[in-house]
Amino acid sequence: MDTNRYCIIMAGGIGSRFWPISRSDRPKQFLDILGTGKTFIRSTYERFRTIIPSENFLVVTNSSYKGLVLEQIPELREGQVLCEPLGRNTAPCIAYAAFRMKAVNPQATMIITPSDHLILDESTFLETIKAGAEFAEAHDALVTIGLKPTRPATGYGYIQVEPAMLENGVNRVKTFTEKPTLEVARMFVEIGEFFWNSGIFIWRVETILEAIRRFLPDTYQLFSSIAPYYATPLEQGHINRIYPECRGVSIDYGVMEKADNVYVRCSDFGWSDIGTWGSLYEYMPKDDAGNANEGAAIPFDTHNSIIKLPAGKIAVIEGLDDFIVVDTDDVLMICPKNNEQNIKKFIDTVKFEKGDGFI
Amino acid sequence: MDTNRYCIIMAGGIGSRFWPISRSDRPKQFLDILGTGKTFIRSTYERFRTIIPSENFLVVTNSSYKGLVLEQIPELREGQVLCEPLGRNTAPCIAYAAFRMKAVNPQATMIITPSDHLILDESTFLETIKAGAEFAEAHDALVTIGLKPTRPATGYGYIQVEPAMLENGVNRVKTFTEKPTLEVARMFVEIGEFFWNSGIFIWRVETILEAIRRFLPDTYQLFSSIAPYYATPLEQGHINRIYPECRGVSIDYGVMEKADNVYVRCSDFGWSDIGTWGSLYEYMPKDDAGNANEGAAIPFDTHNSIIKLPAGKIAVIEGLDDFIVVDTDDVLMICPKNNEQNIKKFIDTVKFEKGDGFI
Repeated sequence: MDTNRYCIIMAGGIGSRFWPISRSDRPKQFLDILGTGKTFIRSTYERFRTIIPSENFLVVTNSSYKGLVLEQIPELREGQVLCEPLGRNTAPCIAYAAFRMKAVNPQATMIITPSDHLILDESTFLETIKAGAEFAEAHDALVTIGLKPTRPATGYGYIQVEPAMLENGVNRVKTFTEKPTLEVARMFVEIGEFFWNSGIFIWRVETILEAIRRFLPDTYQLFSSIAPYYATPLEQGHINRIYPECRGVSIDYGVMEKADNVYVRCSDFGWSDIGTWGSLYEYMPKDDAGNANEGAAIPFDTHNSIIKLPAGKIAVIEGLDDFIVVDTDDVLMICPKNNEQNIKKFIDTVKFEKGDGFI
Repeated sequence: MDTNRYCIIMAGGIGSRFWPISRSDRPKQFLDILGTGKTFIRSTYERFRTIIPSENFLVVTNSSYKGLVLEQIPELREGQVLCEPLGRNTAPCIAYAAFRMKAVNPQATMIITPSDHLILDESTFLETIKAGAEFAEAHDALVTIGLKPTRPATGYGYIQVEPAMLENGVNRVKTFTEKPTLEVARMFVEIGEFFWNSGIFIWRVETILEAIRRFLPDTYQLFSSIAPYYATPLEQGHINRIYPECRGVSIDYGVMEKADNVYVRCSDFGWSDIGTWGSLYEYMPKDDAGNANEGAAIPFDTHNSIIKLPAGKIAVIEGLDDFIVVDTDDVLMICPKNNEQNIKKFIDTVKFEKGDGFI
C-alpha cells in the first residue's frame, strides 16, 4: 500500500430522494438500502481499505452525522472525521480536506469518493483507481473517473474525452455536460466518446489547491486564512466560523469545467449512484411479475413495483402497476414509480403539514 | 323500564371483512372503526341501556372474547356473558340464550341484536323496538325489524311484507330473500314492499323455543338435554360438551323462513351493518377528492379512497383511485375498493404463507 495515498469519503448528503427510508437523521449513505448486509459508507470504506491503510482515510460529513460515521467505520480515529457545520456542496468540502491534507502530508495523493454509490466489479474498480492515481502522481493533473454508459441516463453528468489515449489509459477531457435531455443522452451513448461522471476524483494536494486558488479564489482565501489551525484542536472552531461564509458550489462547476489540466480514466466496473428508487429497482432481485419486494409482501395483480417494508411487517397489495410502496414505522409512501421526482414535493408538503419529525 | 324485557347481544363474529384492522384477537365489534370514540358493542349496549336495565342483558360470544366483552361493558356480571366454545352460526347461539332465559325468567321477552351495526336515529330505533316488543308480547309472534332500503344493496337480506299493517305498525312477512343480484335488488327497491333484514329479532322465550323445537328439533334436543344446568355453575361444562355436536345454521334459514308466525316491524332509523370497507366508506367523513382519510394522509391525485393508518403515522399517497389502504402495526393492505370481496382470499393466502399471527 502506498502510504502517500489517501481516501477522502464525502458523506454529507441528506439523501432526500430515498425518503421516507432515508431520513435526515440517517441518510442514504448510512443505510443498507440494497439489502447487502452493509451500509453504503461501510462498503465504500471496505472497497478502498484493500489499497489504502485505515489511518489514511478522511470522511467529510455534517457534524450531526459524526456519530454515524464512527459507528459505521469504527477503525477511524475521531480526528479523521471532518465535520462541516452545514452543507455547502462539494467544493468547500474538498477545499477543507485539501487544506487538512496539506497540513498532514503535503505530498499526498487524494482519492475523493462519494459514500453512497454501488460498484459491482471491485477488482476492475481498484485497477482503475490505481491507474488514475499513478497518472495524477506523475503529472499536474486533475483526474476524474468516467464510466462507459450502458443506457441514455438523463440523471448523470457526461464527460466527453479527447480521442487520444495517454499513459495509464487516461484521456484528456474535452467537455462536461450535466444531466442532458433524453435525446442528447441517446446521442452521447451512440457517439461513444461520452462517459458518465462518477464523482470520483484523484489529484495531488498541491494540484487541487492551485486549481482552487485560481478558479475559486474566495474559497481558497477563506480556508487559507485558518492555515495555522488545521490538524490542531482549534481547527473545528475555525471551520465552524468560516463555513457559513463559503459559497455553495460543486467542484465540477467551480473547478473541473474551468481548468485545462483535467483528465479522465475511463472504465467499466458496474457502477450506479443509486440516486433514485428507479435506479435502486434495477439492482433489486425481482419476482416473476417484476416486483422488487424482498418477500414480505404478497402481491396480487401487481407488477413492476418496489415494495419496502419494515422488518417483521407483511403486506397484501392488489392492483398496482409500476408503483413504489415504502413503509416505515411512522411514514407510508405510495406513488407511481415514474413520478418519483415528486418525492421532493412530498417532503416539502409533509414538512409544512406535519412538521420536521417526519423528514 | 319493563323488567321482563331482555336484550341479547350476539357478539361472536370474527369480522374478517375488516382485516387487517379487525383481527381474530379483536374483531370488529370490539373496535371503534368509525372513529366515534366508542366500540360497536359499547354503542349497542348504551343504545339499549336506556330501555333495558343492565341486569337484563346477556351477551353471547366466543369464549376467547369474554374478557373483551367485560372490558367494554364492565356493568355486566360474568354470568351475563354466555360463552360459545366455537361458532355455530346464529341458531345455536339463540337457542342457548333462550334456554338460559327459560331458566331465569320464562315470561321474558327477548330482544336479540347484532353487536356491530351502525344506527343513526336512536329515538326512532327505540320506538321501533318498543312497538315490536309490544306486538311480540301480545301475540305468539316471531318479530323481526325491517329497514326501508335506501339503495339496491346486494349484500343484505330482504323481507317482503304483506301489505296490510297490523297493530303497532307490524306487518306479516311474505318472503325472505338473501343477497339478491343487483337487478333483483333494484326491482325490490322499486316495488316498495321489500325491506332490509336488520338481524334484530323480538319474541317471547316460549315462542322461540316452540319454533326451534318444531323446525330445528336436533338443536332443541341438544340444548334441552342439559336443561337442569342452565344458570348453574355446571352450565359452561355442558355447553362446551354439546356445542361441537350442533349443526351450524342461521336463525333466518333454520326458523324464520319456515315458520308462519313471522312478522316484521318496518322502520327507517338510518341503519348499516357496516359489513364491508365500502359500506364503512359511506359513513366516513371525506375530503373534497372523496378520500376518507381521517387527516393523517396527504393525498396527491388520489380520489374516493379509504386510508386508515395507526395513530401517529402519516402517509403520502399519489395516484390511487377507488382504493383501500389500511395500515396496521404489522400488516399493510392495499387493494381496489371494488375488489374487497378479495379480503377473504387475502386472509387465506396470508395464513398459508405467513402463519396465523397475521390473522
